Amino acid sequence: MNFRQNRRLVILTEGRLDLFSAKTAVSLIRYCKEDVVALIDRVNAGKDTESIIGIGKGIPILSTVEDSLCLHPNALLIGIAPPGGMLPDEWRKHIIDALKNGLHIISGLHCHLSDDQEFLRLANERHVKIWDVRKFSEDIPLGTGKARNTRALRILTVGSDCNIGKMVTSIEIARAARMRGIHACFVATGQTGIMIDGSGIAVDHVVSDFISGAAEKLVLDRAQHQLLSIEGQGAIVHPAYSGVTIGLLHGSAPQGLILCHQPGRKTLRHFSDFPVLPLSYLIDLYEKLAQPVFPCKVLGISLNCFGMTDYDALQEIQRIEQETKLPATDPVKFGVNKFMNSIQPLLP
Amino acid sequence: MNFRQNRRLVILTEGRLDLFSAKTAVSLIRYCKEDVVALIDRVNAGKDTESIIGIGKGIPILSTVEDSLCLHPNALLIGIAPPGGMLPDEWRKHIIDALKNGLHIISGLHCHLSDDQEFLRLANERHVKIWDVRKFSEDIPLGTGKARNTRALRILTVGSDCNIGKMVTSIEIARAARMRGIHACFVATGQTGIMIDGSGIAVDHVVSDFISGAAEKLVLDRAQHQLLSIEGQGAIVHPAYSGVTIGLLHGSAPQGLILCHQPGRKTLRHFSDFPVLPLSYLIDLYEKLAQPVFPCKVLGISLNCFGMTDYDALQEIQRIEQETKLPATDPVKFGVNKFMNSIQPLLP
Repeated sequence: MNFRQNRRLVILTEGRLDLFSAKTAVSLIRYCKEDVVALIDRVNAGKDTESIIGIGKGIPILSTVEDSLCLHPNALLIGIAPPGGMLPDEWRKHIIDALKNGLHIISGLHCHLSDDQEFLRLANERHVKIWDVRKFSEDIPLGTGKARNTRALRILTVGSDCNIGKMVTSIEIARAARMRGIHACFVATGQTGIMIDGSGIAVDHVVSDFISGAAEKLVLDRAQHQLLSIEGQGAIVHPAYSGVTIGLLHGSAPQGLILCHQPGRKTLRHFSDFPVLPLSYLIDLYEKLAQPVFPCKVLGISLNCFGMTDYDALQEIQRIEQETKLPATDPVKFGVNKFMNSIQPLLP
Repeated sequence: MNFRQNRRLVILTEGRLDLFSAKTAVSLIRYCKEDVVALIDRVNAGKDTESIIGIGKGIPILSTVEDSLCLHPNALLIGIAPPGGMLPDEWRKHIIDALKNGLHIISGLHCHLSDDQEFLRLANERHVKIWDVRKFSEDIPLGTGKARNTRALRILTVGSDCNIGKMVTSIEIARAARMRGIHACFVATGQTGIMIDGSGIAVDHVVSDFISGAAEKLVLDRAQHQLLSIEGQGAIVHPAYSGVTIGLLHGSAPQGLILCHQPGRKTLRHFSDFPVLPLSYLIDLYEKLAQPVFPCKVLGISLNCFGMTDYDALQEIQRIEQETKLPATDPVKFGVNKFMNSIQPLLP
């Protein structure tokens, strides 16, 4: 099975179908709706997907994998990323049902489902695959700095926090570029991005000596493109994830950064003792960290205005543009044309 | 076997006994000379250790583990850290000899010797242990930022490059502090430091999401001390290792930094396309990255003046002090009293 082509996915969300818990499911529905045949969720079964998360019109919500068989699915995708990445016991039954019915399994959990002896035996019996998105099949090399010598324009998203819109912004930039006839590629670095694109490396899962090496490999393997729109991770001042952020920055050697931010978020998500830093401080820090390795500037501010009216969002965008003297937009509400106007002149 | 107490070590250096290749061996001889009964090195056998590396007077260099048995060793320590961390084939014979003669094995290589079936079988037969220093026995948690709430004064070494004196500086600060009656502890974060101290976590070997969590755990587990002298890793602008550096910074939440540097080093070791940055740029960057999480200042500059005359070293120290307005010293040549004068007033 090619994990991007001819997919007919059922997505497990099991009672956690909301915009915060089911980030993976929501993103798959947003960017690969044609691949999604049903959601599996006992709590919400019978409801309409769109009525709960605002997108996914017409995708049915069912109680069990068995209920979905009439829709001819070929893979079960785990659509929730619980903190810590472990597999809740109640999900085992769904996975076993899927395997017994000849469905592949796609999972981004930290624990590898392909290491589970029962799952593995069933998968072998039915000749299906278990794709642990965070497990890599190839050796990851040490970083060398070589990415800075590739001809492609490399644009990396960075953030004032985690879970703030970096993946969405990077996907939207790649799509907008292709619409303009640019040979552009989204470079996935986290499990949801990899599921959407069908390729990538989960950089948060490599051994820490090899973070920048993984980012560099992603760039070198895609160097024939004109534009690489690279998904960022974490935030540069963060009590847990700053190592992944800086490894991505130095390994992918971008010439341009898009800084992602959510208006009104005062403290880091899950870390309420840590304030979100002023944008000017972050811009200075990201540029100073990148600059000695390669010329690099923040080119725009991507604002996640989820929950705001369009009017309020536009006001906020204007305020941020005045504050930072950089183009700002909400990619979901208003697209990324403003960023493209800054990116296009830099293309090779 | 306790890996710190009652050690009688033979150290394998096998033709690579010099100050650059045999960092682990040299450091063990410098800080645990009383534990070292012999070196194993066919090329240098019969010579005096001191004549080659300037320290280790009286430690014999022998050809084989068997030759050392009359000195009653109880462990073979791999004293070389080859790039990539893999085990050269020619070393296997020495390890097998050691195991057959009932010696424990201590290794800091990336590849785990305890996963080798032949080594494991021999170790089990002779009831000895294989200690892979980079393998951790406990779960590493995600970082939370809690280290900043510990009462201990936390001093972290950072650097303008790798392999520049961070471990030595941190050990010397802990020793000098204990000499002054301070309840101080060296916190090891790399394989050589762990071998010297007998405890620690090799932060370059954890999964990248957990770098700061590992550093935080090291601090919380030692929080009863007055002073934690924490071994730094890598450098903040480095094509391979910056992720480990920043994870350590945010996870250990130091109030003070000692910046390690080598006069005359113009480009990064093994990365000749990357210049070593000006100290003022590095001081600004390290402080700006740390500051939002906890109040933190660079307190001094540790200079590695290896190969310089004392006179030239003193000139260089004076020059750096004028440039940075911070106390500077070479810890090996002149001790760390200058740093202690800045550190002591900050103690709880």
